[in-house]
Amino acid sequence: MKLGTLKDGTRDGKLVVVSRDLTKAVAAQDIAPTLQRALDDWKSAEPALRALAERLEKGSAPTAFAFDPTKMMAPLPRAYQWIDGSVFKNHGELMKKAFDTENKVSFPEDRPMMYQGASDEFIGPTDDFVTVEEAWGIDFEAEVGVITGEVAMQTPPDKAGAAIRLVMLMNDWSLRNLIMEELSRMFGFMQSKPASACSPLAVTPDELGPAWKDWMVHLPLRVQFNGSPFGRANAGVGAAFNFSHLISHATRTRNLVAGSIIGSGTVSNADRETGSSCIAERRAMERIEHGAPRTPFMKFGDRVRIEALDAAGRSVFGAIDQKCSALARRV
Amino acid sequence: MKLGTLKDGTRDGKLVVVSRDLTKAVAAQDIAPTLQRALDDWKSAEPALRALAERLEKGSAPTAFAFDPTKMMAPLPRAYQWIDGSVFKNHGELMKKAFDTENKVSFPEDRPMMYQGASDEFIGPTDDFVTVEEAWGIDFEAEVGVITGEVAMQTPPDKAGAAIRLVMLMNDWSLRNLIMEELSRMFGFMQSKPASACSPLAVTPDELGPAWKDWMVHLPLRVQFNGSPFGRANAGVGAAFNFSHLISHATRTRNLVAGSIIGSGTVSNADRETGSSCIAERRAMERIEHGAPRTPFMKFGDRVRIEALDAAGRSVFGAIDQKCSALARRV
Repeated sequence: MKLGTLKDGTRDGKLVVVSRDLTKAVAAQDIAPTLQRALDDWKSAEPALRALAERLEKGSAPTAFAFDPTKMMAPLPRAYQWIDGSVFKNHGELMKKAFDTENKVSFPEDRPMMYQGASDEFIGPTDDFVTVEEAWGIDFEAEVGVITGEVAMQTPPDKAGAAIRLVMLMNDWSLRNLIMEELSRMFGFMQSKPASACSPLAVTPDELGPAWKDWMVHLPLRVQFNGSPFGRANAGVGAAFNFSHLISHATRTRNLVAGSIIGSGTVSNADRETGSSCIAERRAMERIEHGAPRTPFMKFGDRVRIEALDAAGRSVFGAIDQKCSALARRV
Repeated sequence: MKLGTLKDGTRDGKLVVVSRDLTKAVAAQDIAPTLQRALDDWKSAEPALRALAERLEKGSAPTAFAFDPTKMMAPLPRAYQWIDGSVFKNHGELMKKAFDTENKVSFPEDRPMMYQGASDEFIGPTDDFVTVEEAWGIDFEAEVGVITGEVAMQTPPDKAGAAIRLVMLMNDWSLRNLIMEELSRMFGFMQSKPASACSPLAVTPDELGPAWKDWMVHLPLRVQFNGSPFGRANAGVGAAFNFSHLISHATRTRNLVAGSIIGSGTVSNADRETGSSCIAERRAMERIEHGAPRTPFMKFGDRVRIEALDAAGRSVFGAIDQKCSALARRV
């Protein structure tokens, strides 16, 4: 089942079910007005939403309309919880080299690296990323995110994965030139990680078929930068921890509410042929190969597109396709 | 005007208006079912809520009932945004001494220290703080929090304070023995800062009278630990930055949604006579005076009470009064 949130002028948008081929959508307001409400009452909402999805596939949903990704918000336009991990070892190693933090940042073997993100705003899949200064080092990060139900404190790693309700793609916008100054003060990311964007669709794990295995998405994330291929790292390859580990780790000292979003961190494979899921990684590789980075960070007007296709070549989550643009200054 | 959220079995509770003397309450469901909804539509909700508060004061609100703090949730039991600052210089200095981070953590002069907190759960004022291990170094932190309306990216420090809708007290529960391990990995606080608690009432700034000045609460926070006085640091004394600075800083790279909570950090005065707003500070002072800390962190069953009285001795926000208790293990 594929779910999304339609722009309707409200902060939380309107919950819709979308067909497997991404051509049709139908509003689910009789079941739940918003995705958060459906997640709050998943036990009763899920079967009703699945029944609606089935009617949509069969062409027997009379109020169906054409699906248009530009009309979509993030599945949860504002959420209560967002914790991002960093499970791809190759990304961690390259970032250490990129930022000269070899001796400062250590990725432990026995537990995942995670940071508390800001959940108050998730940008729609085709909406601009608006920021202030190109000099801040604007970068994208292609990753996978899961949306959970309620998870109790101290849920073990072999049980936490069962709380995953939906899977989506994310673009974790990063301001590279603000990161080291923030991290060096030891209070974590704040200004350097502004609002992330999400794919138009959040899908139930079964929708992924065999590509959902061991609590991970075993598909390449196709990243295009200004229309050119940039990366196709597989989100199921090279991860030190999976989503069940991440969720369990997040519950060590707290409960998670329904609608919590947990991220994998930038998807990255050791195989250089797969390219990169963020500019900073490519710059790190250039630094290793040529002594200095060659690819600049994003300029206003640059575009990034992130998508995952299944074995049959169909888009699973729809595409994140965003332009980076300058904040219009108030006079 | 004093607002609060009554337990009603739902996740967001029910919005109530409470009388100035904390004896009576009245449900505001005809205006907004929850505090978040009122904040989402503050322009129309505020005058209606003020009119209801006036009727309550005059005794002409027929559905009024007795106010009972034990029936209250946090004003926003789950919120979209929580960013905590650390503006009290004395706290920063003592924490550096307590944790041997003199050379690692630097508090800059030109901008406030802030970290991205988890907003998905705020504990009710008299509900237990539930955690797993005493060995984690359980500690309270008495501070002031403000709840904002929407704030646009890049709002300057002289304008950001105008977005403050409500003021409350907070207990930023901290697991001291998990902090340094987390901070040393440079990804900020995650497991070491579980859910915070809030006072039963969030009040409009005008409710504070002359105690609201320069975007700060000029009242002592009375902290009692197991029934004994522990601290009475004034939340208007010794701060390097005020709430307008904090909000502005938070908007450097992002918008803030309505219902964002911004914290001052542990209130702390240089005057040792005022005691401490957290155990870690007292331990730091003991270390300075005696070479080693003497006061242990909290044990299960310990209680902390945090309250602020106005010049006339009336409780402004009601009291946070919590017991620390052990998580009941599932079998």
